[in-house]
Amino acid sequence: MKLWDKGLPTDQKIGIFTVGNDRQLDLVIAKYDIQATLAHAKMLHQISILSDQDIFDVEKGLHALSKEVEEGTFTIEDQFEDVHSKIEFELTNSIGEAGKKIHTARSRNDQVLVAMHLYLKDELNQIKDLVKALSNNLLTLAEQYKDVLLPGYTHLQIAMPSSFGLWFSAYAESFVDDLYFVNAAYKVVDQNPLGSAAGYGSSFPIDRAFTTKELGFETLKFNVVAAQMSRGKSEKSTAFALSSVAGTLSKMAMDVCLYMSQNFDFMSIPSQFTTGSSIMPHKKNPDVFELIRGKCNKIQALPYELSLLTNNLPSGYHRDLQLLKEGIVPAIQDTKACLEMSIYALKNVTVNQNILRDKKYDYLFSVDTLNTLVMNGMSFRDAYINIGKDIENNNYQPEKDTKHTHIGSINNLCLNEIKEKLKQV
Amino acid sequence: MKLWDKGLPTDQKIGIFTVGNDRQLDLVIAKYDIQATLAHAKMLHQISILSDQDIFDVEKGLHALSKEVEEGTFTIEDQFEDVHSKIEFELTNSIGEAGKKIHTARSRNDQVLVAMHLYLKDELNQIKDLVKALSNNLLTLAEQYKDVLLPGYTHLQIAMPSSFGLWFSAYAESFVDDLYFVNAAYKVVDQNPLGSAAGYGSSFPIDRAFTTKELGFETLKFNVVAAQMSRGKSEKSTAFALSSVAGTLSKMAMDVCLYMSQNFDFMSIPSQFTTGSSIMPHKKNPDVFELIRGKCNKIQALPYELSLLTNNLPSGYHRDLQLLKEGIVPAIQDTKACLEMSIYALKNVTVNQNILRDKKYDYLFSVDTLNTLVMNGMSFRDAYINIGKDIENNNYQPEKDTKHTHIGSINNLCLNEIKEKLKQV
Amino acid sequence: MKLWDKGLPTDQKIGIFTVGNDRQLDLVIAKYDIQATLAHAKMLHQISILSDQDIFDVEKGLHALSKEVEEGTFTIEDQFEDVHSKIEFELTNSIGEAGKKIHTARSRNDQVLVAMHLYLKDELNQIKDLVKALSNNLLTLAEQYKDVLLPGYTHLQIAMPSSFGLWFSAYAESFVDDLYFVNAAYKVVDQNPLGSAAGYGSSFPIDRAFTTKELGFETLKFNVVAAQMSRGKSEKSTAFALSSVAGTLSKMAMDVCLYMSQNFDFMSIPSQFTTGSSIMPHKKNPDVFELIRGKCNKIQALPYELSLLTNNLPSGYHRDLQLLKEGIVPAIQDTKACLEMSIYALKNVTVNQNILRDKKYDYLFSVDTLNTLVMNGMSFRDAYINIGKDIENNNYQPEKDTKHTHIGSINNLCLNEIKEKLKQV
Amino acid sequence: MKLWDKGLPTDQKIGIFTVGNDRQLDLVIAKYDIQATLAHAKMLHQISILSDQDIFDVEKGLHALSKEVEEGTFTIEDQFEDVHSKIEFELTNSIGEAGKKIHTARSRNDQVLVAMHLYLKDELNQIKDLVKALSNNLLTLAEQYKDVLLPGYTHLQIAMPSSFGLWFSAYAESFVDDLYFVNAAYKVVDQNPLGSAAGYGSSFPIDRAFTTKELGFETLKFNVVAAQMSRGKSEKSTAFALSSVAGTLSKMAMDVCLYMSQNFDFMSIPSQFTTGSSIMPHKKNPDVFELIRGKCNKIQALPYELSLLTNNLPSGYHRDLQLLKEGIVPAIQDTKACLEMSIYALKNVTVNQNILRDKKYDYLFSVDTLNTLVMNGMSFRDAYINIGKDIENNNYQPEKDTKHTHIGSINNLCLNEIKEKLKQV
Repeated sequence: MKLWDKGLPTDQKIGIFTVGNDRQLDLVIAKYDIQATLAHAKMLHQISILSDQDIFDVEKGLHALSKEVEEGTFTIEDQFEDVHSKIEFELTNSIGEAGKKIHTARSRNDQVLVAMHLYLKDELNQIKDLVKALSNNLLTLAEQYKDVLLPGYTHLQIAMPSSFGLWFSAYAESFVDDLYFVNAAYKVVDQNPLGSAAGYGSSFPIDRAFTTKELGFETLKFNVVAAQMSRGKSEKSTAFALSSVAGTLSKMAMDVCLYMSQNFDFMSIPSQFTTGSSIMPHKKNPDVFELIRGKCNKIQALPYELSLLTNNLPSGYHRDLQLLKEGIVPAIQDTKACLEMSIYALKNVTVNQNILRDKKYDYLFSVDTLNTLVMNGMSFRDAYINIGKDIENNNYQPEKDTKHTHIGSINNLCLNEIKEKLKQV
Repeated sequence: MKLWDKGLPTDQKIGIFTVGNDRQLDLVIAKYDIQATLAHAKMLHQISILSDQDIFDVEKGLHALSKEVEEGTFTIEDQFEDVHSKIEFELTNSIGEAGKKIHTARSRNDQVLVAMHLYLKDELNQIKDLVKALSNNLLTLAEQYKDVLLPGYTHLQIAMPSSFGLWFSAYAESFVDDLYFVNAAYKVVDQNPLGSAAGYGSSFPIDRAFTTKELGFETLKFNVVAAQMSRGKSEKSTAFALSSVAGTLSKMAMDVCLYMSQNFDFMSIPSQFTTGSSIMPHKKNPDVFELIRGKCNKIQALPYELSLLTNNLPSGYHRDLQLLKEGIVPAIQDTKACLEMSIYALKNVTVNQNILRDKKYDYLFSVDTLNTLVMNGMSFRDAYINIGKDIENNNYQPEKDTKHTHIGSINNLCLNEIKEKLKQV
Repeated sequence: MKLWDKGLPTDQKIGIFTVGNDRQLDLVIAKYDIQATLAHAKMLHQISILSDQDIFDVEKGLHALSKEVEEGTFTIEDQFEDVHSKIEFELTNSIGEAGKKIHTARSRNDQVLVAMHLYLKDELNQIKDLVKALSNNLLTLAEQYKDVLLPGYTHLQIAMPSSFGLWFSAYAESFVDDLYFVNAAYKVVDQNPLGSAAGYGSSFPIDRAFTTKELGFETLKFNVVAAQMSRGKSEKSTAFALSSVAGTLSKMAMDVCLYMSQNFDFMSIPSQFTTGSSIMPHKKNPDVFELIRGKCNKIQALPYELSLLTNNLPSGYHRDLQLLKEGIVPAIQDTKACLEMSIYALKNVTVNQNILRDKKYDYLFSVDTLNTLVMNGMSFRDAYINIGKDIENNNYQPEKDTKHTHIGSINNLCLNEIKEKLKQV
Repeated sequence: MKLWDKGLPTDQKIGIFTVGNDRQLDLVIAKYDIQATLAHAKMLHQISILSDQDIFDVEKGLHALSKEVEEGTFTIEDQFEDVHSKIEFELTNSIGEAGKKIHTARSRNDQVLVAMHLYLKDELNQIKDLVKALSNNLLTLAEQYKDVLLPGYTHLQIAMPSSFGLWFSAYAESFVDDLYFVNAAYKVVDQNPLGSAAGYGSSFPIDRAFTTKELGFETLKFNVVAAQMSRGKSEKSTAFALSSVAGTLSKMAMDVCLYMSQNFDFMSIPSQFTTGSSIMPHKKNPDVFELIRGKCNKIQALPYELSLLTNNLPSGYHRDLQLLKEGIVPAIQDTKACLEMSIYALKNVTVNQNILRDKKYDYLFSVDTLNTLVMNGMSFRDAYINIGKDIENNNYQPEKDTKHTHIGSINNLCLNEIKEKLKQV
């Protein structure tokens, strides 16, 4: 059964081409379609299109389907074009005529839109929670290792003293910025599109304020054309948020992969977290962090995929928009998996406590020495030239006692302030 | 003069390759570098590194340079690597020793960072204002043309009645979503990075809270490594915001280009806004909207360019980051130009008042007819099949009187509600 | 069984995260892994590492597996990390010790590389054939409809006379350019990487020339580090080729969607090829072409996804490269499906023969009129101004008889020359 | 003067917005426009539209302009919309009536197209030469340092022995693949588009075969609509080629930056090639290679920018296409600069000859040891487990004498075969 079936035999090849792998992706949407269908039905009852008996039947029927979804027994068979056809079919099958009325005053377009909005809200919330959990974890690690020094690099050249306290908490504070984008995406999808029908509204006297409240949206997308345009835009907005989170996570994973190399040897993870080589018996590879990096880099390509899909399409629905799901659903799942795996793996990290004993790191302290000269009255430019000459002539002697005490420096990490930022976002 | 010049002759070819067109781009940064340098100097005075006389001289010197920038006489000659070298040179030239001390406790890295943050804050504010101005304009046009009907399309096929009221205000409401991203980007750059020096802080007892307040930042990026990581991230965040705005503007321009085609003939702009053809005397081309579309599409590639630049770079500064400016500065200028041109051009648009007289648009009303049947008691699915047959047999007669009255529909545009949304974002 | 299992219990969570959906993607690779494993085994026999009995057993065992793959009964169960582990396991299971020796002198890295190269060669050939078939189809349609005129647009404004002959054959000739990229990608993957082992070669005296010949590669990637670097590069090269084909196909689909709109009404497809609307009974939507457009636009994002995955990774294998398959395999399948569907759907297109009867298309002929004036002696600039005035004053009268006879113009389509180009590429 | 000026005052703001920075970019096109204009004029003379006197005058006039371009005195003043207007103006100014006739039977569209094709052909040839020069350089370095061993990494973990011979020549062979794409792009642009006029041909009896031969194109783009579609496609094809080259160059630069880090210390460049730090006197930063990496990463975003610009635009010219130049011209210049700088900087590289003395690299030889066991009769899987245990218990003793002798391995680099590949592409 396809909703738009008018009796003409649709060529089977076309069917396969047009439906694609929608059914599988639609399983994640089922829950939200049932929720939105119920709200729509209640509204139809409110405006007397559904009778008391109708709404009683619909609630019962949807409740049964909802249970199937929860229990994992809900499936979408090949004869159904998508989750929406399947749900309408099952409803009509179990409750009769009332099921047929459910599609009154809505279109597949706003039906998909509202389910997608509910889905994205839910997922963005989960991602926000995971980012916060990971960040709090990083703050704990920063506290734990605040006294372990680390070389700070610029241009990948040894530059100035840093610390694990700084390194761990830097990523925690950096994730706060990503959450601003998660929040922005959330605001975009927290607007009820239901009632926009095919993108131009309806001649039924529907009550959009009712469904907005019923579904817990903060506001509605008033203009029905704007509501339709949020197809694509919601996904792209979410993709920006995912991409922002993924960018930070990928950079952290890159650092870890580098720091686990024998040429740095700054940290390690237990053997169970590594993989070996099919030919090299000595290898313990940081595949987990490489895959976090790789998956997060892939996620960063998503906004561009969605832009290419939607760009230069005039306003109004186009079937191209169906392909949005294929991109956004796996990216959401990957983002969550990468965040969970990061939390899990970082808990098991071991940190090398004696990195700076290696003489090659002595130059890290040249700026501090320079600053001491300046504090003692020499001009900056003169001190710079002096130390430069000492280094040139191998006369430089470091004082390894860092005196960085200002806000956000090695000896003043401001972890509470960062925690507060994280709480407020 | 280059800040890092240690007496060794740097190969000239290298110089040209590494500096690139930085000087030209740096002109837009000059104002913000002066502002940040002044705040840094005041802080140095506060912690007694600059004397009373020093700060008096510095303020005077910077004030003079600031005036040059305002008056457009400030230039960066070829002997200077960038705006920062130039400003330090001029300052030392005019006020002597105190000028040399200005670089104490900061690095080029946080100097660039803070100037860039101030620049981006300023530009994001301007862009927000322009988006609001354009949106308010669109709301005015929606009010003006609320009764002019327009075909609504799905799949580029004639679908249901729409209106210029709906079309204009749809874009106004859609821009609200983009402003959430402008706000998110603003929050990212509204955090003081000054004091992070080369990305690992400083052994000077600098007062970062002082400069935060002095420069009007809402908060500071506490962690100095996080502050350094905001290089690239600030630009990418801004690029997401620009990309969001550009996506909406590009779609609107695509609609206009289509609607101005003789095959639609929905709207037109005065001849002065069009260009002709070098060989076709009858052409009046909508180049303005094509260029808005094109420029906005280019802008949407920016986040990807910045991702490729920064991706998989370990934490810490790399010279690659210098290239960020080449991307972000012109994109900001283009976004503003496109917004300004849209405001200007839309004011001059003429709308075709009689579009729906053409018989090919009759089918627009089939859903409304169907709904009337349903309101009169027929089931949706049966009504759908009935009208389908009428159309198949050329028996369909439209009633062109739209009865769409629900929130956000043709006869209930909710322009005030959209205006309110716009005000609150 | 995992190849790198050294007795340590690998955490199960890690296993799921690192393996991902590899098994499913690997099914398309099975055939090529068997083929390459056989060639490798023959070479090991050649250099006396496998005995005569060994190679006899291996051939028998691989032949049996090969049959399973052909018959579609081959599966990769959850206990296997990938297709390569599965094949080695089954081989050892069925033939004993000889199966264990098969991995001598190769690594998973070059094993994956060579299977991927064989797979990509095969697919690029198929895509080339499909592009040629579609192009020949377009040339047939061009011949068939060479006399049906069509408005030519610039800026989406009515410009000059065109024809279906021109339009169909334009895409045929345009696809030739894409085939240059298909050929380039083919040359990249037609170089044997087997023998590079983990990317640094082997201390076994392997005979890489033997496997090159055995597997039908035109040459080999000599340098083993270069061979390893072709991981990622092969996929990106193929992605450029797919992207090139997809760009042309997407543009053609955009034209079709526009031309099928009632506002153009230039062509139509039978009802079986269209879909309807869940609420609008009059709709016959060109979903097939919208999905071709959408899928082809998605494909164009692939090179960027692969770039983000591989960019800024130092040379040498990284686990990130495992994720390449997830992108390239579905994109190849989509490209082929879109080409097949285009061939299928275009065969059923009906062309509107009387488009230019509509008076709005009269201006199409203004340049021809102008040219006649010029041919009769008026200067171009003067003729341009004259006709411009006629049009301004509604005095313009078109001569609808096109006299375009030069190479590649309406009355001289050069279809044979284009066919020849297509044959030679 | 603008070509399409019909007497109406074009709003000045519009003018600035639509022209943009075209004039500056157009300077690189001037030479090719003059060349194509001359060929077009000769053809017009051939078909008797220009008289003998006309063509004499035109040749003289164009010759004079050509000289100005060569000498660098040619400029495009603000009153000219672009280079084409300027050249036509100057020609008419110097030779009178004949100058006015030059635009007969062509349009700005094919005028731009043909100049762009000639420009791209020229640049692609230069890039090919530079890639070959760099690759030959790398082969020379490979020969020079063929005996210097280097650790080979997988997962950034120490893996197996490699060498500078392998490393340098790997990039040389890898660039061959990029040249396949340079060749493909060259074939795309080596087809004469002149004569397609505004994209639909001309009613003049022009001789396109004549201009094809005159301009040295291998063939012509027969179909005029296809010729027009090559606008955007030529640039995108070139961008694929640039992107391919840039990807390889960027990876090489990443390796160099890593290898120059004190944590690797594999190579160094003279001080003149490094830059210092404004606050750290000990720094010698590899800015040159960081900027090569950064610029090459930016270049890899270009195909995406061009795709976004052109995607979903129906066939026929759109003004958006004017923006192509802004992307492709600087990317070509950057690619050439990066190639030149790589040639220049690599010549000055110093290689560390004693890397493998460091004990941490001992495990590099574990596979070779394993292979020896296998060669002596142990099964691969058993040998793997044995050595694994030795390593676990710190009993492993390396034999540092590599016995890799197969094609493309450390002791058999096949530099001549790679040189031959390079010659033949």
